[in-house]
Amino acid sequence: MASSTVSFIIIIIIITTVLLPSLSSQLSDLFPSNNPPPFLGKHSHPIKQPNHHQQYRYETRYFSQPLDHFSFLDLPRFRQRYLINTEHWVGPSRSGPIFLYCGNEGDIEWFAVNTGFVWDIAPRFGAMILFPEHRYYGDSMPFGSKEEAYRNATTLSYLTAEQALADFAVLITDLKKNLSAEGCPVVLFGGSYGGMLAAWMRLKYPHVAVGALASSAPILQFEDIVPPETFYNIVSNSFKRESSSCFDTIKNSWNALRSEGQKEDGLKQLSKTFHLCRELTSVQGLSDWLDSAYSYLAMVCKRIDGSPAGSSILERIFNGVSVYYNYTGEVDCFQLDDDPHGMDGWNWQACTEMVMPMSSDQNTSMFPAYDWDYSAFREGCQRDFQVTPRPRWITTEFGGHDIEHVLKSFGSNIIFSNGLLDPWSGGSVLKNISETIIALITKEGAHHIDLRASSTEDPDWLVEQRATEIKLIQGWIYNYSKKMKATFEI
Amino acid sequence: MASSTVSFIIIIIIITTVLLPSLSSQLSDLFPSNNPPPFLGKHSHPIKQPNHHQQYRYETRYFSQPLDHFSFLDLPRFRQRYLINTEHWVGPSRSGPIFLYCGNEGDIEWFAVNTGFVWDIAPRFGAMILFPEHRYYGDSMPFGSKEEAYRNATTLSYLTAEQALADFAVLITDLKKNLSAEGCPVVLFGGSYGGMLAAWMRLKYPHVAVGALASSAPILQFEDIVPPETFYNIVSNSFKRESSSCFDTIKNSWNALRSEGQKEDGLKQLSKTFHLCRELTSVQGLSDWLDSAYSYLAMVCKRIDGSPAGSSILERIFNGVSVYYNYTGEVDCFQLDDDPHGMDGWNWQACTEMVMPMSSDQNTSMFPAYDWDYSAFREGCQRDFQVTPRPRWITTEFGGHDIEHVLKSFGSNIIFSNGLLDPWSGGSVLKNISETIIALITKEGAHHIDLRASSTEDPDWLVEQRATEIKLIQGWIYNYSKKMKATFEI
Repeated sequence: MASSTVSFIIIIIIITTVLLPSLSSQLSDLFPSNNPPPFLGKHSHPIKQPNHHQQYRYETRYFSQPLDHFSFLDLPRFRQRYLINTEHWVGPSRSGPIFLYCGNEGDIEWFAVNTGFVWDIAPRFGAMILFPEHRYYGDSMPFGSKEEAYRNATTLSYLTAEQALADFAVLITDLKKNLSAEGCPVVLFGGSYGGMLAAWMRLKYPHVAVGALASSAPILQFEDIVPPETFYNIVSNSFKRESSSCFDTIKNSWNALRSEGQKEDGLKQLSKTFHLCRELTSVQGLSDWLDSAYSYLAMVCKRIDGSPAGSSILERIFNGVSVYYNYTGEVDCFQLDDDPHGMDGWNWQACTEMVMPMSSDQNTSMFPAYDWDYSAFREGCQRDFQVTPRPRWITTEFGGHDIEHVLKSFGSNIIFSNGLLDPWSGGSVLKNISETIIALITKEGAHHIDLRASSTEDPDWLVEQRATEIKLIQGWIYNYSKKMKATFEI
Repeated sequence: MASSTVSFIIIIIIITTVLLPSLSSQLSDLFPSNNPPPFLGKHSHPIKQPNHHQQYRYETRYFSQPLDHFSFLDLPRFRQRYLINTEHWVGPSRSGPIFLYCGNEGDIEWFAVNTGFVWDIAPRFGAMILFPEHRYYGDSMPFGSKEEAYRNATTLSYLTAEQALADFAVLITDLKKNLSAEGCPVVLFGGSYGGMLAAWMRLKYPHVAVGALASSAPILQFEDIVPPETFYNIVSNSFKRESSSCFDTIKNSWNALRSEGQKEDGLKQLSKTFHLCRELTSVQGLSDWLDSAYSYLAMVCKRIDGSPAGSSILERIFNGVSVYYNYTGEVDCFQLDDDPHGMDGWNWQACTEMVMPMSSDQNTSMFPAYDWDYSAFREGCQRDFQVTPRPRWITTEFGGHDIEHVLKSFGSNIIFSNGLLDPWSGGSVLKNISETIIALITKEGAHHIDLRASSTEDPDWLVEQRATEIKLIQGWIYNYSKKMKATFEI
């Protein structure tokens, strides 16, 4: 049991290290350094997942997509990469389902390898597996290269969720037609931003997919739908529950960090304390780096609290975040992200439509107090990308306000799965909306843990959660087949 | 009764003359003249509606819209015109409904004046009335003027249904926020292409509107969902039922027309027979002009059959179409459309996404035989607009195939109303899909006759149809209020 807990922690670490920060990086580099430090970093360098890689076989293909689905500008098309596996697919004659993972902000191969759930269950469904990549990520670059695609606001302007959904719709429609598989039901999967895409896709393209498993999809983290303090309060409460002394250590560390940084040789000393490969030029980068670790892992508290007596606040902090950044113990020194204003795809999305207001409450949060300041955010976007955000567009296009009323008698077949340890759960759907728009909640769950490959060490609640998901998906497919059969018999 | 029938016929004439041809003009100028003549003309010059004009009071306002909702290109915004009437609105405190007519391909003032149903029923609902104009029509021109907006394929490229729907969503969201009317239910109305927009808007933006009355909305007239012969068979069958001699006269007239046109002085003679203001330069324009009349009015048969004994085929035809083009008897000569390749907005839409395949069957149709030829159509679009159509885009974006299955357990609160005399009914939804996605069919109905102002001369079936629509709309609003109240009490 002890060993399984440890493995489980490691899994959480891997997931959260890679998937979440990229979604949450919106604040990281948008505040001037003289503002309160940002809470979330963008330390999304993929960590290799051992073992699984070999067992997932797929073919890599490319599909020619219009750059703009919603205008008829004469623009160059681009090649969208997708991964496909048909070895378990029972084909059109038996209406074999198609499992489509909605690629999100990163290399699709990484998501394929880290979404073991889809691979695990495809054989029993006789399902085809598809992993289409999100435009502007991985190998799916408009204008021929990342350099060209990310050149400026004009070339980036087609990097939006709506265009990505249309890519998926066009791709799957074409693919089904070519395979004479129009009668095969498509089931959507997605985690984090990919989960948002899966939910929105089911809502906007019900004719394309029969249902969606949207894991850890914070579709309500927009505008004023949830209080902006939600995210940091969830993290902070987890830490407080874990250990109030740990909570206090972290809460006090910000001032310690700041005053250390202001000393002569302070930055040099901080770089040493935190084993950084290169010397700091400001406290900002280090602060971001720490935030990223805290946001997802109450486990750092064990190390913080368990540091040798006499350890300084900052030494304790270093011990804590080492669990996150150096769980193998093999890292000699740490590389901070040294290009916080770089043309990162998610930062562009955050600066255009994915505007998620976040605050840190002085009393309840262990992070530096910060009130969401849209003007400052907008100015940062104008400075970094020469673009002005549309903070109300996502709720206009996809809804979110009063979602329980809107979808009570509209829409069907969506699972919103969330673990309450995941700070993103606060912006997701946590209550059943109707008989077929379901919220699956696990108290102990972290960020889309249900989409990971199953393991003999999985806790019972996770095994049960996945079993429920499988049953619901079976129901969607069964109902779809029944309707089709009924028509055929008429 | 006789007098009421006559009025009713006149109403049909007015409606169909103005609304339908513009929707159906896609084929009019896309075939080279050496092809079979096109079946539908674009004789959409508004005929003034008497009397009603005065009784509809509204304020004209403008709203600044992004030109492209789905990219972040730095484009000039444009002013969208909308008409608003709040005199009956009971306001936010009593959750007064908002009736929104989805402006279609023309000047919004014209649609406002000719959609009496909305004005008639708003007082009893305590509803606000909104008529937003469709981009690129009327006074809602991007780039400052029609000349600039219609300059070329680049400036026209944002004239799409998706952009128009987003315009409506952004406008109503902003307006409600400014009026603190977020809790006020929006009900959508639309006829013909506007009906398609209303239905699609309810499907894509359920958070924006609680329901849609989509009158004569041929959302299935795409790709291969309905046979391409549907439209002309409906027209032809109406004529045949009315009078088989009339059917034969028209069917035979095309050859008569053609051979007359080939004679020396033939075009001159034809121009005289048909009282044209200017002499014909080819038979094509005349043929288009005749088609437009036939497509919507079996009543021409009375005149065709009732022509004096010894009348030639073409004389009979002229007498017939005079009912359509000269029902007041005051027209001295007829102006044909002399710019068939002009930058007409609907032609652009037909050449980009609104690709509605149509054929004319040699055996069943009274129109010249024609097989839908996508290649020729595409070439015409490339020639006229320098744009390549996306014939499968509408069904990818909005669905249509297997609509009864897709929407059986998805979506709610849409009325598809259709009159079976309307040839567009063949491409619409004619069967109930679920308890709340309803098909209202009238055997005697013409093109969105239900949206017209009520009159003491309305036939019983029309009175009943409108009463049913009112009851259904009341149900949507009642259910919405109930849900809202339930939450409030919790």
